[in-house]
Amino acid sequence: GHVVIIGWNPATESAYNELRSLNVAKHIVLVHERGPVIHDEMTTTVRGDPTRTETLLRASVDKASMAIVALDDDAKTALTVLAVKALNPRARIVAEALYPEHVDLIHKAGADIVLATRSLGGRLLAAALLEPGAAMFVEDAASAAYGKAKFKEIPGKRFAGKPFGEAMRLLREKGCTPIAVRRGTALIPNPPDSLIILESDAIVVVTPREEETC
Amino acid sequence: GHVVIIGWNPATESAYNELRSLNVAKHIVLVHERGPVIHDEMTTTVRGDPTRTETLLRASVDKASMAIVALDDDAKTALTVLAVKALNPRARIVAEALYPEHVDLIHKAGADIVLATRSLGGRLLAAALLEPGAAMFVEDAASAAYGKAKFKEIPGKRFAGKPFGEAMRLLREKGCTPIAVRRGTALIPNPPDSLIILESDAIVVVTPREEETC
Ligand SMILES: [Ca+2]
Ligand SMILES: [Ca+2]
Repeated sequence: GHVVIIGWNPATESAYNELRSLNVAKHIVLVHERGPVIHDEMTTTVRGDPTRTETLLRASVDKASMAIVALDDDAKTALTVLAVKALNPRARIVAEALYPEHVDLIHKAGADIVLATRSLGGRLLAAALLEPGAAMFVEDAASAAYGKAKFKEIPGKRFAGKPFGEAMRLLREKGCTPIAVRRGTALIPNPPDSLIILESDAIVVVTPREEETC
Repeated sequence: GHVVIIGWNPATESAYNELRSLNVAKHIVLVHERGPVIHDEMTTTVRGDPTRTETLLRASVDKASMAIVALDDDAKTALTVLAVKALNPRARIVAEALYPEHVDLIHKAGADIVLATRSLGGRLLAAALLEPGAAMFVEDAASAAYGKAKFKEIPGKRFAGKPFGEAMRLLREKGCTPIAVRRGTALIPNPPDSLIILESDAIVVVTPREEETC
Protein backbone atom coordinates (compact mmCIF):
# COMPACT_ATOMS: atom_id res chain seq x y z
CA GLY A 1 0.00 0.00 0.00
CA HIS A 2 0.96 3.66 -0.32
CA VAL A 3 1.91 6.21 2.34
CA VAL A 4 -0.45 9.14 3.02
CA ILE A 5 0.93 12.36 4.53
CA ILE A 6 -1.89 14.52 5.89
CA GLY A 7 -1.11 18.20 6.55
CA TRP A 8 1.62 20.45 5.11
CA ASN A 9 4.09 22.27 7.37
CA PRO A 10 7.85 22.19 8.03
CA ALA A 11 7.49 18.82 9.79
CA THR A 12 5.54 16.98 7.08
CA GLU A 13 7.68 18.58 4.38
CA SER A 14 10.71 17.11 6.11
CA ALA A 15 8.99 13.72 6.62
CA TYR A 16 8.16 13.69 2.90
CA ASN A 17 11.78 14.40 1.94
CA GLU A 18 13.04 11.79 4.37
CA LEU A 19 10.69 9.08 3.06
CA ARG A 20 11.77 9.88 -0.50
CA SER A 21 15.46 9.70 0.41
CA LEU A 22 15.00 6.36 2.16
CA ASN A 23 13.90 4.77 -1.08
CA VAL A 24 11.15 2.82 0.59
CA ALA A 25 9.80 2.82 -2.94
CA LYS A 26 6.20 3.40 -1.96
CA HIS A 27 3.91 5.88 -3.58
CA ILE A 28 3.26 8.94 -1.39
CA VAL A 29 -0.06 10.81 -1.40
CA LEU A 30 -0.06 14.33 0.09
CA VAL A 31 -3.36 15.60 1.51
CA HIS A 32 -3.75 19.26 2.45
CA GLU A 33 -5.69 22.45 1.83
CA ARG A 34 -2.97 24.99 1.08
CA GLY A 35 0.36 23.24 0.47
CA PRO A 36 2.09 22.74 -2.89
CA VAL A 37 0.60 20.47 -5.54
CA ILE A 38 3.28 17.89 -6.30
CA HIS A 39 2.74 15.26 -8.97
CA ASP A 40 5.69 13.11 -10.03
CA GLU A 41 6.55 9.43 -10.42
CA MET A 42 6.46 9.00 -6.65
CA THR A 43 3.90 11.57 -5.49
CA THR A 44 0.24 12.50 -5.87
CA THR A 45 -1.41 15.50 -4.21
CA VAL A 46 -5.04 15.62 -3.09
CA ARG A 47 -6.46 19.00 -2.10
CA GLY A 48 -9.27 19.30 0.39
CA ASP A 49 -10.25 19.43 4.04
CA PRO A 50 -8.33 16.52 5.57
CA THR A 51 -10.86 16.03 8.34
CA ARG A 52 -13.52 15.07 5.73
CA THR A 53 -13.97 11.41 4.78
CA GLU A 54 -14.63 12.45 1.19
CA THR A 55 -11.13 13.98 0.96
CA LEU A 56 -9.51 10.96 2.59
CA LEU A 57 -11.24 8.60 0.15
CA ARG A 58 -9.89 10.60 -2.79
CA ALA A 59 -6.43 9.84 -1.32
CA SER A 60 -7.37 6.11 -1.14
CA VAL A 61 -6.71 6.13 2.60
CA ASP A 62 -8.70 2.89 2.79
CA LYS A 63 -5.93 1.15 0.79
CA ALA A 64 -2.90 2.83 2.41
CA SER A 65 -0.41 0.91 4.51
CA MET A 66 0.81 3.92 6.51
CA ALA A 67 -0.30 7.45 7.33
CA ILE A 68 1.31 10.48 8.93
CA VAL A 69 -1.15 12.99 10.42
CA ALA A 70 0.21 16.42 11.43
CA LEU A 71 -2.25 19.29 11.09
CA ASP A 72 -0.75 21.96 13.40
CA ASP A 73 -3.93 21.76 15.47
CA ASP A 74 -4.35 18.91 17.95
CA ALA A 75 -8.16 18.86 17.63
CA LYS A 76 -8.00 18.49 13.84
CA THR A 77 -5.23 15.90 14.14
CA ALA A 78 -7.33 13.83 16.57
CA LEU A 79 -10.44 14.04 14.35
CA THR A 80 -8.45 13.04 11.27
CA VAL A 81 -6.81 10.10 13.07
CA LEU A 82 -10.32 8.89 14.02
CA ALA A 83 -11.44 9.19 10.37
CA VAL A 84 -8.35 7.40 9.01
CA LYS A 85 -8.73 4.61 11.56
CA ALA A 86 -12.43 4.20 10.67
CA LEU A 87 -11.61 3.90 6.95
CA ASN A 88 -8.60 1.65 7.46
CA PRO A 89 -8.10 -0.13 10.79
CA ARG A 90 -4.94 -1.90 9.60
CA ALA A 91 -2.86 1.09 8.49
CA ARG A 92 0.01 2.14 10.73
CA ILE A 93 -0.73 5.70 11.87
CA VAL A 94 1.90 8.10 13.18
CA ALA A 95 0.63 11.47 14.42
CA GLU A 96 2.19 14.71 15.61
CA ALA A 97 0.86 16.38 18.76
CA LEU A 98 1.66 20.04 19.37
CA TYR A 99 1.24 19.69 23.12
CA PRO A 100 2.44 16.73 25.23
CA GLU A 101 -0.85 16.68 27.17
CA HIS A 102 -2.66 15.64 23.95
CA VAL A 103 -0.42 12.64 23.21
CA ASP A 104 -2.62 10.16 25.10
CA LEU A 105 -5.86 11.44 23.55
CA ILE A 106 -4.52 11.20 19.98
CA HIS A 107 -3.23 7.76 20.85
CA LYS A 108 -6.71 6.76 22.00
CA ALA A 109 -8.12 8.15 18.74
CA GLY A 110 -6.20 5.38 16.98
CA ALA A 111 -2.63 6.51 16.28
CA ASP A 112 0.02 3.83 16.79
CA ILE A 113 2.72 6.35 17.65
CA VAL A 114 2.22 9.99 18.68
CA LEU A 115 5.23 12.27 18.84
CA ALA A 116 5.13 15.68 20.53
CA THR A 117 7.80 16.93 18.17
CA ARG A 118 7.66 20.62 19.11
CA SER A 119 8.00 19.74 22.75
CA LEU A 120 10.90 17.46 21.85
CA GLY A 121 12.42 20.35 19.89
CA GLY A 122 12.14 22.60 22.93
CA ARG A 123 13.85 20.04 25.14
CA LEU A 124 16.67 19.93 22.60
CA LEU A 125 16.94 23.74 22.64
CA ALA A 126 17.38 23.51 26.41
CA ALA A 127 19.90 20.66 26.06
CA ALA A 128 21.82 22.63 23.44
CA LEU A 129 22.49 25.37 26.01
CA LEU A 130 23.99 22.97 28.52
CA GLU A 131 25.18 19.87 26.65
CA PRO A 132 25.67 20.81 23.00
CA GLY A 133 26.98 17.39 21.95
CA ALA A 134 23.69 15.75 22.90
CA ALA A 135 21.66 18.10 20.69
CA MET A 136 24.15 17.75 17.82
CA PHE A 137 23.97 13.98 18.09
CA VAL A 138 20.17 13.91 17.91
CA GLU A 139 20.17 16.25 14.89
CA ASP A 140 22.55 13.97 13.04
CA ALA A 141 21.24 10.57 14.05
CA ALA A 142 17.56 11.38 13.50
CA SER A 143 18.09 11.66 9.76
CA ALA A 144 19.10 8.89 7.40
CA ALA A 145 19.56 11.50 4.69
CA TYR A 146 22.46 13.50 6.09
CA GLY A 147 25.25 13.53 8.64
CA LYS A 148 27.55 10.79 9.81
CA ALA A 149 25.21 8.60 11.85
CA LYS A 150 21.71 7.28 11.93
CA PHE A 151 19.43 5.34 14.22
CA LYS A 152 18.36 1.96 12.94
CA GLU A 153 16.34 -1.00 14.22
CA ILE A 154 17.74 -4.48 13.70
CA PRO A 155 15.80 -7.67 14.44
CA GLY A 156 16.68 -9.31 17.75
CA LYS A 157 16.28 -12.72 16.14
CA ARG A 158 19.96 -13.34 15.48
CA PHE A 159 20.80 -12.63 19.14
CA ALA A 160 17.80 -14.45 20.66
CA GLY A 161 18.70 -16.04 24.01
CA LYS A 162 21.99 -14.15 24.27
CA PRO A 163 22.71 -11.43 26.82
CA PHE A 164 22.71 -7.82 25.62
CA GLY A 165 26.44 -7.50 26.51
CA GLU A 166 27.32 -10.11 23.91
CA ALA A 167 25.17 -8.42 21.24
CA MET A 168 26.92 -5.16 22.15
CA ARG A 169 30.35 -6.73 21.61
CA LEU A 170 29.40 -8.35 18.28
CA LEU A 171 27.67 -5.23 16.95
CA ARG A 172 30.48 -2.88 18.02
CA GLU A 173 32.88 -5.09 16.03
CA LYS A 174 30.78 -4.27 12.99
CA GLY A 175 30.82 -0.54 13.70
CA CYS A 176 27.39 -0.14 15.31
CA THR A 177 26.52 0.85 18.87
CA PRO A 178 23.35 -0.65 20.42
CA ILE A 179 21.57 1.82 22.67
CA ALA A 180 18.14 0.35 23.39
CA VAL A 181 15.89 -2.68 23.01
CA ARG A 182 12.31 -2.31 21.80
CA ARG A 183 10.02 -5.02 23.15
CA GLY A 184 6.67 -4.55 21.42
CA THR A 185 5.52 -1.08 22.39
CA ALA A 186 7.93 -0.84 25.35
CA LEU A 187 11.40 0.63 25.10
CA ILE A 188 14.34 -0.45 27.26
CA PRO A 189 16.99 2.22 26.75
CA ASN A 190 20.57 1.57 27.80
CA PRO A 191 19.90 -2.06 28.84
CA PRO A 192 22.20 -3.87 31.28
CA ASP A 193 24.68 -6.39 29.80
CA SER A 194 22.69 -9.17 31.48
CA LEU A 195 19.38 -8.51 29.66
CA ILE A 196 18.46 -11.63 27.64
CA ILE A 197 17.36 -10.74 24.11
CA LEU A 198 14.08 -12.23 22.87
CA GLU A 199 13.42 -13.36 19.31
CA SER A 200 10.70 -10.72 18.90
CA ASP A 201 12.86 -7.84 20.21
CA ALA A 202 14.20 -5.09 18.00
CA ILE A 203 17.61 -3.63 18.85
CA VAL A 204 18.02 0.11 18.32
CA VAL A 205 21.55 0.92 17.16
CA VAL A 206 23.56 3.93 16.07
CA THR A 207 25.11 3.08 12.74
CA PRO A 208 27.38 4.91 10.29
CA ARG A 209 25.24 6.42 7.56
CA GLU A 210 27.16 5.30 4.49
CA GLU A 211 27.16 1.56 4.95
CA GLU A 212 24.86 -1.06 6.31
CA THR A 213 27.53 -2.50 8.55
CA CYS A 214 25.46 -4.48 10.99
CA GLY B 1 24.06 35.41 34.47
CA HIS B 2 20.42 34.56 33.76
CA VAL B 3 18.83 32.69 30.86
CA VAL B 4 16.61 34.59 28.41
CA ILE B 5 13.94 32.71 26.43
CA ILE B 6 12.71 34.81 23.50
CA GLY B 7 9.43 33.77 21.85
CA TRP B 8 6.52 31.72 23.24
CA ASN B 9 5.30 28.57 21.46
CA PRO B 10 5.17 24.83 22.20
CA ALA B 11 8.97 24.59 21.75
CA THR B 12 9.98 27.42 24.11
CA GLU B 13 7.31 26.35 26.61
CA SER B 14 8.94 22.92 26.67
CA ALA B 15 12.46 24.41 26.86
CA TYR B 16 11.31 26.52 29.83
CA ASN B 17 9.90 23.48 31.64
CA GLU B 18 13.03 21.45 30.89
CA LEU B 19 15.38 24.17 32.20
CA ARG B 20 13.29 24.45 35.36
CA SER B 21 13.35 20.68 35.92
CA LEU B 22 17.13 20.53 35.43
CA ASN B 23 17.62 22.76 38.46
CA VAL B 24 20.33 24.75 36.76
CA ALA B 25 19.28 27.28 39.40
CA LYS B 26 19.50 30.27 37.09
CA HIS B 27 16.90 32.95 36.79
CA ILE B 28 14.86 32.72 33.58
CA VAL B 29 13.48 35.79 31.80
CA LEU B 30 10.72 35.19 29.23
CA VAL B 31 10.39 37.74 26.42
CA HIS B 32 7.31 37.72 24.16
CA GLU B 33 4.36 39.69 22.92
CA ARG B 34 1.43 37.39 23.57
CA GLY B 35 2.49 34.51 25.85
CA PRO B 36 1.60 34.11 29.54
CA VAL B 37 2.98 36.49 32.14
CA ILE B 38 4.83 34.31 34.65
CA HIS B 39 6.45 35.81 37.73
CA ASP B 40 7.75 33.50 40.43
CA GLU B 41 10.94 32.89 42.38
CA MET B 42 12.67 31.62 39.21
CA THR B 43 10.95 33.55 36.42
CA THR B 44 10.36 37.09 35.19
CA THR B 45 8.31 37.98 32.09
CA VAL B 46 8.99 40.96 29.84
CA ARG B 47 6.32 41.87 27.29
CA GLY B 48 7.23 43.61 24.06
CA ASP B 49 8.46 43.20 20.50
CA PRO B 50 11.48 40.91 20.88
CA THR B 51 13.18 42.28 17.77
CA ARG B 52 13.48 45.72 19.49
CA THR B 53 16.63 46.54 21.47
CA GLU B 54 14.52 48.42 24.00
CA THR B 55 12.60 45.20 24.82
CA LEU B 56 15.79 43.16 25.06
CA LEU B 57 17.36 45.68 27.44
CA ARG B 58 14.33 45.44 29.73
CA ALA B 59 15.16 41.69 29.88
CA SER B 60 18.79 42.57 30.75
CA VAL B 61 19.98 40.61 27.72
CA ASP B 62 23.31 42.45 28.05
CA LYS B 63 23.93 40.63 31.35
CA ALA B 64 22.56 37.19 30.37
CA SER B 65 24.80 34.14 30.09
CA MET B 66 22.51 32.25 27.68
CA ALA B 67 19.63 32.93 25.32
CA ILE B 68 17.15 30.80 23.40
CA VAL B 69 15.59 32.53 20.37
CA ALA B 70 12.59 30.84 18.72
CA LEU B 71 10.07 33.21 17.15
CA ASP B 72 8.20 30.93 14.69
CA ASP B 73 9.46 33.16 11.87
CA ASP B 74 13.01 32.71 10.60
CA ALA B 75 13.39 36.38 9.60
CA LYS B 76 12.42 37.60 13.08
CA THR B 77 14.61 34.94 14.68
CA ALA B 78 17.63 36.07 12.62
CA LEU B 79 17.03 39.75 13.41
CA THR B 80 16.68 39.03 17.11
CA VAL B 81 19.85 36.91 17.17
CA LEU B 82 21.71 39.85 15.59
CA ALA B 83 20.31 42.19 18.26
CA VAL B 84 21.16 39.83 21.14
CA LYS B 85 24.69 39.32 19.79
CA ALA B 86 25.19 43.09 19.46
CA LEU B 87 24.12 43.68 23.06
CA ASN B 88 26.03 40.71 24.46
CA PRO B 89 28.75 39.07 22.36
CA ARG B 90 29.64 36.59 25.12
CA ALA B 91 26.24 35.00 25.71
CA ARG B 92 25.70 31.49 24.37
CA ILE B 93 22.85 31.72 21.87
CA VAL B 94 20.75 28.76 20.76
CA ALA B 95 18.17 29.45 18.03
CA GLU B 96 15.37 27.51 16.37
CA ALA B 97 15.05 27.61 12.57
CA LEU B 98 11.75 26.58 10.99
CA TYR B 99 13.39 25.62 7.70
CA PRO B 100 16.75 23.80 7.36
CA GLU B 101 17.84 26.19 4.58
CA HIS B 102 17.91 29.04 7.12
CA VAL B 103 20.20 27.28 9.59
CA ASP B 104 23.42 28.69 8.11
CA LEU B 105 22.06 32.24 7.91
CA ILE B 106 20.92 32.27 11.54
CA HIS B 107 24.28 30.80 12.46
CA LYS B 108 26.00 33.68 10.64
CA ALA B 109 23.75 36.13 12.49
CA GLY B 110 25.52 35.01 15.66
CA ALA B 111 23.82 31.92 17.09
CA ASP B 112 26.19 29.30 18.51
CA ILE B 113 23.81 26.42 17.78
CA VAL B 114 20.84 26.46 15.41
CA LEU B 115 18.40 23.56 15.47
CA ALA B 116 15.82 23.00 12.74
CA THR B 117 13.55 21.32 15.25
CA ARG B 118 10.43 21.04 13.06
CA SER B 119 12.45 19.43 10.34
CA LEU B 120 13.94 17.09 12.93
CA GLY B 121 10.41 16.32 14.11
CA GLY B 122 9.39 15.45 10.55
CA ARG B 123 12.31 13.10 10.15
CA LEU B 124 11.23 11.40 13.36
CA LEU B 125 7.65 11.06 12.06
CA ALA B 126 9.10 9.29 9.02
CA ALA B 127 11.36 7.13 11.18
CA ALA B 128 8.42 6.23 13.41
CA LEU B 129 6.65 4.64 10.42
CA LEU B 130 9.58 2.38 9.62
CA GLU B 131 11.70 1.99 12.76
CA PRO B 132 9.53 2.85 15.77
CA GLY B 133 12.22 2.07 18.36
CA ALA B 134 14.43 4.83 16.99
CA ALA B 135 11.72 7.47 17.39
CA MET B 136 10.77 6.18 20.84
CA PHE B 137 14.40 6.30 21.91
CA VAL B 138 14.84 9.92 20.80
CA GLU B 139 11.63 10.96 22.59
CA ASP B 140 12.85 9.43 25.83
CA ALA B 141 16.52 10.35 25.71
CA ALA B 142 16.01 13.97 24.65
CA SER B 143 14.41 14.82 27.99
CA ALA B 144 16.09 14.76 31.38
CA ALA B 145 12.68 15.27 32.95
CA TYR B 146 10.96 12.04 32.02
CA GLY B 147 11.46 8.51 30.74
CA LYS B 148 14.16 5.99 31.48
CA ALA B 149 17.16 7.49 29.71
CA LYS B 150 18.81 10.75 28.89
CA PHE B 151 21.67 12.06 26.81
CA LYS B 152 24.51 13.58 28.79
CA GLU B 153 27.92 15.05 28.06
CA ILE B 154 30.84 13.99 30.23
CA PRO B 155 34.29 15.61 30.08
CA GLY B 156 36.86 13.62 28.09
CA LYS B 157 39.53 14.64 30.60
CA ARG B 158 39.45 11.45 32.64
CA PHE B 159 39.97 9.36 29.49
CA ALA B 160 42.53 11.63 27.80
CA GLY B 161 45.04 9.61 25.76
CA LYS B 162 42.98 6.42 25.99
CA PRO B 163 41.25 4.78 23.03
CA PHE B 164 37.46 5.14 22.78
CA GLY B 165 37.04 1.36 23.16
CA GLU B 166 38.49 1.51 26.66
CA ALA B 167 36.26 4.44 27.64
CA MET B 168 33.31 2.42 26.29
CA ARG B 169 34.21 -0.55 28.49
CA LEU B 170 34.69 1.56 31.63
CA LEU B 171 31.52 3.60 31.07
CA ARG B 172 29.38 0.54 30.27
CA GLU B 173 30.49 -0.94 33.61
CA LYS B 174 28.93 2.11 35.25
CA GLY B 175 25.68 1.74 33.29
CA CYS B 176 26.26 4.36 30.57
CA THR B 177 26.64 3.87 26.82
CA PRO B 178 28.92 6.30 24.97
CA ILE B 179 27.60 7.12 21.49
CA ALA B 180 29.63 10.07 20.22
CA VAL B 181 32.57 12.36 20.89
CA ARG B 182 32.21 16.13 20.58
CA ARG B 183 35.47 17.82 19.61
CA GLY B 184 34.83 21.57 19.79
CA THR B 185 32.06 22.23 17.30
CA ALA B 186 32.56 18.92 15.47
CA LEU B 187 30.70 15.75 16.34
CA ILE B 188 32.11 12.24 15.85
CA PRO B 189 29.14 9.90 16.22
CA ASN B 190 29.70 6.21 16.77
CA PRO B 191 33.52 6.50 16.96
CA PRO B 192 35.77 3.51 16.29
CA ASP B 193 37.33 1.78 19.30
CA SER B 194 40.74 3.09 18.18
CA LEU B 195 39.86 6.82 18.41
CA ILE B 196 42.19 8.46 20.96
CA ILE B 197 40.29 10.73 23.33
CA LEU B 198 41.65 14.26 23.83
CA GLU B 199 41.55 16.17 27.09
CA SER B 200 39.26 18.81 25.56
CA ASP B 201 36.78 16.28 24.12
CA ALA B 202 33.30 15.78 25.50
CA ILE B 203 31.84 12.25 25.42
CA VAL B 204 28.11 12.01 24.67
CA VAL B 205 26.56 9.12 26.59
CA VAL B 206 23.15 7.59 27.15
CA THR B 207 22.62 7.36 30.86
CA PRO B 208 19.83 6.08 33.11
CA ARG B 209 17.72 9.02 34.22
CA GLU B 210 17.51 8.36 37.94
CA GLU B 211 21.14 8.26 38.89
CA GLU B 212 24.33 9.97 37.87
CA THR B 213 26.14 6.70 37.36
CA CYS B 214 29.05 7.80 35.22
CA1 LIG C 1 22.27 11.24 10.05
CA1 LIG D 1 14.45 10.80 29.31
